[in-house]
Amino acid sequence: MTEAAGTRRAVVLLSGGLDSATCLALARDAGFACHALSIDYGQRHDAELAAARRVAAALGAVRHQVFDVDLRPVGGSALTDPAVAVPETPGEGIPPTYVPARNTLLLSLALGWAEVLGARHIYTGVNAVDYSGYPDCRPEFIRAFQAVANLGTRAGVEGDGFTIATPLIHLPKHEIIRLGRGLGVDYGLTVSCYQADDAGRACGRCDACRLRAAGFERAGGPDPTRYQA
Amino acid sequence: MTEAAGTRRAVVLLSGGLDSATCLALARDAGFACHALSIDYGQRHDAELAAARRVAAALGAVRHQVFDVDLRPVGGSALTDPAVAVPETPGEGIPPTYVPARNTLLLSLALGWAEVLGARHIYTGVNAVDYSGYPDCRPEFIRAFQAVANLGTRAGVEGDGFTIATPLIHLPKHEIIRLGRGLGVDYGLTVSCYQADDAGRACGRCDACRLRAAGFERAGGPDPTRYQA
Repeated sequence: MTEAAGTRRAVVLLSGGLDSATCLALARDAGFACHALSIDYGQRHDAELAAARRVAAALGAVRHQVFDVDLRPVGGSALTDPAVAVPETPGEGIPPTYVPARNTLLLSLALGWAEVLGARHIYTGVNAVDYSGYPDCRPEFIRAFQAVANLGTRAGVEGDGFTIATPLIHLPKHEIIRLGRGLGVDYGLTVSCYQADDAGRACGRCDACRLRAAGFERAGGPDPTRYQA
Repeated sequence: MTEAAGTRRAVVLLSGGLDSATCLALARDAGFACHALSIDYGQRHDAELAAARRVAAALGAVRHQVFDVDLRPVGGSALTDPAVAVPETPGEGIPPTYVPARNTLLLSLALGWAEVLGARHIYTGVNAVDYSGYPDCRPEFIRAFQAVANLGTRAGVEGDGFTIATPLIHLPKHEIIRLGRGLGVDYGLTVSCYQADDAGRACGRCDACRLRAAGFERAGGPDPTRYQA
């Protein structure tokens, strides 16, 4: 897609999952030229990045940039460390799929890129309702990060401030799905599963699969998720 | 170096420059087992990473880990974009060597690693006196990041909070040098120059070189900096 002169830019964090796809559709609907950002952090589920590329193209992102950040030396998460298993039954508290400081890191990269692009809006699909218990999906974390953005950058200090836009933060999954459908999101392109296969087919058993399936059931209508045999 | 049982750990951001070397010496002096972290962000001055390795070894870091984060797609800085020149005369305001959101990103990586290591102290050599005008070297930025750390991590929410330790933040360069000498820092191992050659020899003309030379002059005693012919 091309970018019309004078269009305001937004950086949109795009994982390839259902929430971030909806978020990209909302940013576009708000009139932004969307620069989509995905991170290759050595995640177990590479299929996410392929999904992010499909979603960026389908939803008219002006650009899609993948940043390489190898988090494997950090370890400590089922998503980056093969020695830690992805749980298939819901547990208590913060689950092993928690990646230490992930959203802080994603937002930091988005912030640097936004500053260079002249974008002052950063969209992230974090969600504090069906959020699997991750501390970095809560509104108080987002507010704190926005303060960091406005104190720690040239654009924050000398110019207009940054807004960390979290349009999905208070929505349950089925409402996110209904919202996205209204904006033309093809959820068949997205991958939520923590252990999808190379073709992007979901396991149907992990936390992310359970949340997604329950959301489609409650939203009504078809669930386009493709599952492993 | 080995780590005695029960020793408290700290993550120390180590650039290979004068300030971060002093910071590592202070963290060690405070009794921490120091896990040093450097970032290979595609910087123009690779010699920094070689210096960081020498400094980590000389000052007894338990471990030195280099994280690969390619910031070249972000661009926008004389330190990561070959199209932007490093200035050799001091200017007004925030200089072109400013890397967008650099300290936010460095602290994010340190935070993730600290959480996994069980470290609750993150040392950074940021300095708000001779700081070249970077917004992310100010105390208000550090306080905001500490709030992010304690809201956005499992360790911050469930356990003891994180401390972002900035022991040099209010010290002028000559006092940093005197402090480090007293702790046995060999500044001949460090590289501050924005455009050092492969052997780590300084240009003598950039902002970083000027600040460093003025610091050694005011501190008195020898300046071990090696300059290009």
